[in-house]
Amino acid sequence: MYPAFLKVFPAFFKTFFKMKLSALFTKTKHNPPQGEVSINAKLLEQAGYISKMMAGVYAYMPLGLRVLKKVSAIIREEMDALGAQEIYLSALQPKALWEVTGRWNELSEIMYQFTDRSDQEVGLATTHEEPITEIAKHYISSYKDLPLAVYQIQDKFRDEPRAKSGLIRGREFSMKDLYSFHTTGNDLDSFYLLVANAYKKIFQRLCLPVRMIEASGGTFTKSYSHEFQVIADAGEDKLIYCTNCDYAQNAEISRYKDGGHCPHCEKTLTESRGIEVGNIFKLGTKFSDALGLHYTDSDGVARPVHMASYGIGPGRVMGTIVEVSHDERGIIWPKSVTPFHAYIASLGNDPGMIECIKKVYTKSQSAGYEVLYDDRNVSPGVKLRDADLLGIPLRIVTGTKSEGKYEISERSMSTKKIVTEKEVFTTLSSFYS
Amino acid sequence: MYPAFLKVFPAFFKTFFKMKLSALFTKTKHNPPQGEVSINAKLLEQAGYISKMMAGVYAYMPLGLRVLKKVSAIIREEMDALGAQEIYLSALQPKALWEVTGRWNELSEIMYQFTDRSDQEVGLATTHEEPITEIAKHYISSYKDLPLAVYQIQDKFRDEPRAKSGLIRGREFSMKDLYSFHTTGNDLDSFYLLVANAYKKIFQRLCLPVRMIEASGGTFTKSYSHEFQVIADAGEDKLIYCTNCDYAQNAEISRYKDGGHCPHCEKTLTESRGIEVGNIFKLGTKFSDALGLHYTDSDGVARPVHMASYGIGPGRVMGTIVEVSHDERGIIWPKSVTPFHAYIASLGNDPGMIECIKKVYTKSQSAGYEVLYDDRNVSPGVKLRDADLLGIPLRIVTGTKSEGKYEISERSMSTKKIVTEKEVFTTLSSFYS
Repeated sequence: MYPAFLKVFPAFFKTFFKMKLSALFTKTKHNPPQGEVSINAKLLEQAGYISKMMAGVYAYMPLGLRVLKKVSAIIREEMDALGAQEIYLSALQPKALWEVTGRWNELSEIMYQFTDRSDQEVGLATTHEEPITEIAKHYISSYKDLPLAVYQIQDKFRDEPRAKSGLIRGREFSMKDLYSFHTTGNDLDSFYLLVANAYKKIFQRLCLPVRMIEASGGTFTKSYSHEFQVIADAGEDKLIYCTNCDYAQNAEISRYKDGGHCPHCEKTLTESRGIEVGNIFKLGTKFSDALGLHYTDSDGVARPVHMASYGIGPGRVMGTIVEVSHDERGIIWPKSVTPFHAYIASLGNDPGMIECIKKVYTKSQSAGYEVLYDDRNVSPGVKLRDADLLGIPLRIVTGTKSEGKYEISERSMSTKKIVTEKEVFTTLSSFYS
Repeated sequence: MYPAFLKVFPAFFKTFFKMKLSALFTKTKHNPPQGEVSINAKLLEQAGYISKMMAGVYAYMPLGLRVLKKVSAIIREEMDALGAQEIYLSALQPKALWEVTGRWNELSEIMYQFTDRSDQEVGLATTHEEPITEIAKHYISSYKDLPLAVYQIQDKFRDEPRAKSGLIRGREFSMKDLYSFHTTGNDLDSFYLLVANAYKKIFQRLCLPVRMIEASGGTFTKSYSHEFQVIADAGEDKLIYCTNCDYAQNAEISRYKDGGHCPHCEKTLTESRGIEVGNIFKLGTKFSDALGLHYTDSDGVARPVHMASYGIGPGRVMGTIVEVSHDERGIIWPKSVTPFHAYIASLGNDPGMIECIKKVYTKSQSAGYEVLYDDRNVSPGVKLRDADLLGIPLRIVTGTKSEGKYEISERSMSTKKIVTEKEVFTTLSSFYS
């Protein structure tokens, strides 16, 4: 019933969706929004994917939510494949829990903290190590309960001093965080490598070229973390990398700070910027020591649980994709996260060419494709401009010279093909295989 | 490939899931948690569906999140069927927007409000009429743009003075809110009826017996709202209802306050309590007037947009289901939202009976069923106690006297059947049809 290409798509998108552009809640704007400096915010707002609520805070409109959900679904599938179990934690956090680890004060500059009407101090979770460690105490008591891995995909909050990077640095942002629990550091090390590989697979499916690099460690020690960086001008991190192999390092901790040659292939290293789209941390026993998460080993001795956490921000991923995949006319979505498989339109009001497009619209759903039908009564120029801005990978149009055939083109290429109705679907099928 | 029963299930649950209880993150507890008074919190925490973070704030554990997602998916499908488009708004809200409607002050007792590090006052959305009206101004300008309907399923926040009802009254809680936009009050009235019918269908699918009643209107006028109430002792609302027909009314606004006879069937009315699981409001032009959401009619005249909003809380629904569907031994999930279709276990360690259960476990996924396999090395008594507490609708076990057959029973009934392996799957199929 479903074509084979669905294997590359998240599983729950087996409920298809067709939409007429005239019925869509959003409209494209003629100009980029005022007051945005980042490319991703400019293009996503102009195209109607997101709507700005305040600095660093965006609402997702129908097309934007579709992209965000596809990103999340790909991440979810790879987490499930690791055997991790999905949970959902709270944004509201009691001060007492975060005081135990010292992070109530440590994070006070970026954590929204306030007093509720019953005079309790509460905060909005910037991250969730404290609550997950506390919760795990209910369920982990013996070495027989380990290893375990759980993950969450939900919004977190940070009172960012600068929030000018669109979806890349939000005050309210979606995060996937995976947490793993182990009896020993060795067991943690093995799982850490599995997660690193799962991350590579995720970014491959998202069509994001990442480099896994040693990182500065944040609040933890250097050797305990890795980042997944995408080379991009919009990045906030300084990287040193090799254009020949996949070697890269954070400039802050690199001994090649002042240039030098790649330790793998001897090529001269380049200074550049990167966007961190994922990170993996070995937490060791930091949180289990502080909060008292212990297990009893086979000799009956109580020992602290070894932990690691692994993050990817789906919203930041979406913003990064736009940063690295666009041109002067608009966004160019990769196949795996495009809001629709094809943009379809008749370039004119001739009943014959409208009829042809309606045929494709009607047959798409049963054939298993998501299509956005630009049925608006506007000029061909406006339609083509919006098609480019929206960035759907395939465009299928009929024009005055079509004579019952279709012009099909890829958003990322300038070539066009004239095809029959049957060939429209074989093209869709081969493109999304 | 998929059995016909899937029609009653949310579409995205076509990715199946089997799980061994020994590998589940959570464990059941021997006793209900201290400090909870509501039945839903007691049972859901004891069974490991949720974990309490602070008063009125719960984390969803793997089984609980599965139930919550199924509830949300049913609601989502019925919203999509109405032609509504899903969006996702922000929790963080700027004070300025809420001052325009006067609700920054009006809601100050229940809205978390605080100052960020750049000295801006922000709040956490208790509801989203202001932001959706503001956003709609970008996209609605002509009568040709209307009608429109959008919805969101996400968390909202209320600084509740009392939060002792578990998932029924949370400080952080999931909400589905639908918003519709119309040229006229008449058009709004027609859509309002469609939504009322969609709500009836949703609650039917959720197996919640609701009564749609006239409501007190909250911040709006009486005649403009309806509530969907479930008769339950745990309810916070006082209702007057008829046990013979579906007539009911909010006691506060009822002229039958002091008893009386049903206006439909003459039966004596009863005083009882109800849990509000949904509500629908005609907002009229309240928000569009305040925030300036206008459309131009066919004569070129600017007019305010007519609006309505329609809420259902998926978390509250989950809590309500437990309130009305449990017994002294535990939860009894309805078929449509159960975390698993069947609980399976061998009541003993005989290799033959374990082999039989493993066969069902292995074949379930290809047959399209979600099974929870209690593979723990614990006594039959512990298994049966936990099976009852967890509340999965069907239980399939093998025992010493099984002789290659299976004992199958419904959680809600005391009868048991002895069946062959083939009959296990025909029973599953007919139960979930």
